[in-house]
Amino acid sequence: MASPSTPPCAACKFLRRKCLPECVFAAYFPPDQPQRFASVHKIFGAGNVAKLLNELRPNQRQDCVASLAYEADMRLRDPIYGCVGVISVLQHRLRQLRIDLSCAKSELSKYQSITISGAAHGSLAANHL
Amino acid sequence: MASPSTPPCAACKFLRRKCLPECVFAAYFPPDQPQRFASVHKIFGAGNVAKLLNELRPNQRQDCVASLAYEADMRLRDPIYGCVGVISVLQHRLRQLRIDLSCAKSELSKYQSITISGAAHGSLAANHL
Repeated sequence: MASPSTPPCAACKFLRRKCLPECVFAAYFPPDQPQRFASVHKIFGAGNVAKLLNELRPNQRQDCVASLAYEADMRLRDPIYGCVGVISVLQHRLRQLRIDLSCAKSELSKYQSITISGAAHGSLAANHL
Repeated sequence: MASPSTPPCAACKFLRRKCLPECVFAAYFPPDQPQRFASVHKIFGAGNVAKLLNELRPNQRQDCVASLAYEADMRLRDPIYGCVGVISVLQHRLRQLRIDLSCAKSELSKYQSITISGAAHGSLAANHL
């Protein structure tokens, strides 16, 4: 929110418009982070972002802007896959880790069954003494 | 691409404009999937999507549209976090799986060291016979 002593928010500066006290962007796009708004505007468009923010409660907007900024950055870095590429990488790692865990558990169960049968054998042998 | 016999693509139908042979949307937004374009347009805006597609090679555009459609769907389902929420969930699962794998490996190494020391003990005993 701009007053005569505060500069306009990054969004209003980018859009070359007056930053009014009720500006929906001001709380989330401070003037010292001009790139954040530029990226979000390039990918989603200022109008769509304003519409999204206006449909949320004020306490939800900071998280929404953070996630939009992340998505926008990812799309600028990877125009084909954006953050869906990150999801694919994570899903691939998850599949690999599940395989590794399953192998480790299966190996562990072999050792455990050897230990149990060994203990049972020992106890049988003791019964014969 | 529309001809007199083909209907306009979902994007041109949504935007109520003529679907010209050079339409950048036609190959990726067929008329039988109107919701796909509606979602992508609502979140990114038709202009931004057209700009993105025009900056890519034709063989990259199908994947780009699929990722945009996924991101748009996620944002419509979860307006605060969108597909960044999916990334958080996957990262949380990855952390949990890494902990589980580390526990399994540590337990496994205990069994393995017991087996090795048992074998060494057995071999020492055999040397004394």
